[in-house]
Amino acid sequence: MLETAEVGHRLDKRTYAREEPKLREALVNAQFDLASARNCSVVVLISGVEAGGRGESAIKLTEWMDPRHLRVHAFGEPTEEEAAHPPAWRYWLALPARGRIAIFMNAWYAEALDGQLRGDEGRERLDGRLTSVRDFERMLARERVLLVKFWIHLAKADQKSRLAALDDDTRTTWRITSADWSRARQYGKNHDLWERALHETSIDVAPWYVVEGADDRYRDMTVGKILLDTMRRALASPPAKRGTKRRAASAPPPAPIDNVKLIRDLDLSQQLSAGEYKRELPRWQARLARATRRKSFEQRSLVLVFEGADAAGKGSAIRRVVHALHPSQYTIVPIAAPTDEELAHPYLWRFWRQLPRRGGIVVFDRSWYGRVLVERVEEIADEAEWMRAYDEIVRFEEELHTAGAVVCKVWLQISKEEQMRRFRAREKTPFKRFKITADDWRNRKRWNDYEGAVCDMVERTSTEIAPWTLVEAEDKRYARIKVLRTIVRRLDAALVK
Amino acid sequence: MLETAEVGHRLDKRTYAREEPKLREALVNAQFDLASARNCSVVVLISGVEAGGRGESAIKLTEWMDPRHLRVHAFGEPTEEEAAHPPAWRYWLALPARGRIAIFMNAWYAEALDGQLRGDEGRERLDGRLTSVRDFERMLARERVLLVKFWIHLAKADQKSRLAALDDDTRTTWRITSADWSRARQYGKNHDLWERALHETSIDVAPWYVVEGADDRYRDMTVGKILLDTMRRALASPPAKRGTKRRAASAPPPAPIDNVKLIRDLDLSQQLSAGEYKRELPRWQARLARATRRKSFEQRSLVLVFEGADAAGKGSAIRRVVHALHPSQYTIVPIAAPTDEELAHPYLWRFWRQLPRRGGIVVFDRSWYGRVLVERVEEIADEAEWMRAYDEIVRFEEELHTAGAVVCKVWLQISKEEQMRRFRAREKTPFKRFKITADDWRNRKRWNDYEGAVCDMVERTSTEIAPWTLVEAEDKRYARIKVLRTIVRRLDAALVK
Repeated sequence: MLETAEVGHRLDKRTYAREEPKLREALVNAQFDLASARNCSVVVLISGVEAGGRGESAIKLTEWMDPRHLRVHAFGEPTEEEAAHPPAWRYWLALPARGRIAIFMNAWYAEALDGQLRGDEGRERLDGRLTSVRDFERMLARERVLLVKFWIHLAKADQKSRLAALDDDTRTTWRITSADWSRARQYGKNHDLWERALHETSIDVAPWYVVEGADDRYRDMTVGKILLDTMRRALASPPAKRGTKRRAASAPPPAPIDNVKLIRDLDLSQQLSAGEYKRELPRWQARLARATRRKSFEQRSLVLVFEGADAAGKGSAIRRVVHALHPSQYTIVPIAAPTDEELAHPYLWRFWRQLPRRGGIVVFDRSWYGRVLVERVEEIADEAEWMRAYDEIVRFEEELHTAGAVVCKVWLQISKEEQMRRFRAREKTPFKRFKITADDWRNRKRWNDYEGAVCDMVERTSTEIAPWTLVEAEDKRYARIKVLRTIVRRLDAALVK
Repeated sequence: MLETAEVGHRLDKRTYAREEPKLREALVNAQFDLASARNCSVVVLISGVEAGGRGESAIKLTEWMDPRHLRVHAFGEPTEEEAAHPPAWRYWLALPARGRIAIFMNAWYAEALDGQLRGDEGRERLDGRLTSVRDFERMLARERVLLVKFWIHLAKADQKSRLAALDDDTRTTWRITSADWSRARQYGKNHDLWERALHETSIDVAPWYVVEGADDRYRDMTVGKILLDTMRRALASPPAKRGTKRRAASAPPPAPIDNVKLIRDLDLSQQLSAGEYKRELPRWQARLARATRRKSFEQRSLVLVFEGADAAGKGSAIRRVVHALHPSQYTIVPIAAPTDEELAHPYLWRFWRQLPRRGGIVVFDRSWYGRVLVERVEEIADEAEWMRAYDEIVRFEEELHTAGAVVCKVWLQISKEEQMRRFRAREKTPFKRFKITADDWRNRKRWNDYEGAVCDMVERTSTEIAPWTLVEAEDKRYARIKVLRTIVRRLDAALVK
């Protein structure tokens, strides 16, 4: 892919002077249309070789477009806050809301390639990293982030002369370090790596545009025109409105393997006597308290996911868990309707922004699984959306795991009869928070649909690093202890490693 | 205030066993009512003496109430991210949305008192700090944050014995450090300081509740009951709905001192020739570039506020400014309608969340002054709200200044005739972003009201540390250079210090 950008493309002054005002006006108009339609956001990712003019291209775009609706993210050395979260955290938080544009410098490609450039990662590690990049970018595309990727390239001789020019100029010499020169000397070796990386990550929804950087006018004009063209095409074919029923692009979802057997086979008769409970509760709480106070936990984090049927006892189970924790160490995030800021971002954004720092604990009271549960059953998400959510969720949890988080997910199950008993009891309780809403009664009518959705969810998202634990919750005491035991065992196993 | 909490309050086990379930139910119900009404948020601030049981009280509240709608903030040593922002930044970001409760441990009282406890701040510094605390808490109250402050206290002998007990117990000995013991030895000296601080910051809208901590049952029950009582009273008297016209509580606003003379006396005929502009622009941009790249700027930040009449040229002036900056160093924040998350927080929250880190630059394209301009003129804010906003804004900018930010504010003024010419020209331009909206025509009808509001604003918020610069913007070239010159001079003056 790179050869075509090593041939000395140039743009003469006169042509540039004629074309530039037209391009500029068209870009501003496209930006305005984007802001009005709010159908998608745009991420312009600029990467490439040293001294190719990546920064200059970014600056030119901010000059051409309305800088008030455009933000450049340099992503330098991670700050302490960034380092205390998974690597992708800072990219997620920087994602622009629909209608807006952001320029990302290098971004995840720096992480994917740096280990190779330094020579301390094997090639199979690169494969894994590039696969993750592809998955991430596909997800962004489906979530209506228009990703436009530019690789600013230079032939070897051009890079050398541009570096020398920058180094000689007193205004720019500070930008050129010995690391730049030593990387430049590795040009031949790195060339293969670049080729491979570009080839592997040039996908239909986010192809690379390799632009020769030797001539500023050619480079900037080419970047601008490609961006304009891509934005125009995206604006001309707005995505189907949510609620429009789109089938999954691939084959229709297969029938669940075991046909809700998973849930129906649970032995809901399991219970614990009051005496046993009184002995077990403090025992498991003490073990949880000790685990989260261990020195080794300071480098980890704990992400707890509570899902379950209405009235299955999620809230009271959560109380027993956090009772063992120090209040400044945990946050409970109840997931209800998204805010308008959340709706303007990719689906998982609202969960990324709540993730714990290293050493922290976040309890999600309902979670990202809403997409394959309530949003599926109530047809808020269309089939294409919830079908791809399984994969997206698995990858999300893998990212958390890789960054040191222990991801622990429980599903609390009760029988339909027990749910009715609890609804009735709640209607009589003076505790107002236990009021039963119309939503609860509506969900109950879809009991069988939920059973199917839950089984699919467990089948498709129970992974080795983040398995589901089904909790028989007919007896509250039994359920609470099983939840605590599950968390403690997962934590203990993770912390001895 | 402290003597009443040194007398050995106790609560017997039987009374506690009888009262506790009732209190708990009532607290949960109050919490539910708060979440339903969403009229205000609640911040429970817990401070007090070492070993008094501050943490235990916080834990008890999380046990009694629904922990899903309650968050505890410990505010330990500032993280790198926190240290790169003004001290109050972390408190602002932790403020709960309306309908929710947060527990703040020590919070701003740690900052106010630590210098005294360490002995490295004079008493006059304490006065300043306590005044700031009062102003901040009054502002919170007016912005519908119900602040309930508890000082957990112990008599000298009780503190000594509680410390000894904690130190002896293998489960708690790690909590007691030599610093705790040395502070305990200063009890007598600190007693005066506490008395003074509590006295000075016990204000009508946020009085201190001093609670004796020697007996756990007494302490927790007292804290719980006071919180319940305060929440109930707040819920029983919801604030007037926004839009209801409330007069300012104090005297009505005085007529502007100079009766819009400030604006009308501007010499709008000032202009710059194309030749002069061509010479001046790169000169001032270079100076701005140099100033923001200076080593000393790394410890400062720059907050630019652009306000002005519609079509006065804010956008194009901003472009000339950011042209001199590196795109990764600045953010432009265009202020439009607030999001629902922003509406659920105190007014200034949306600006606090956008503040620059040390070394950063944020350009506000319209700003917090909206409250005393458009919100005043369009009667979105009532008189009480915009009248107090002047003070709140001055204090806000003082906080930024104290933390090292250079706050630079410009108002761009054009004549009514020039505005009409620009509106007409925009209607003919092919650049869509220059479309004239119904809002623009409506604002124009209120021209005189805006003149009055602008003069009041400048009168009341032009301070030594953050003065307004009125920019004659009839000639765009003149205006852009004056804006650049203003920023450069302010920066240069700040950086030589």
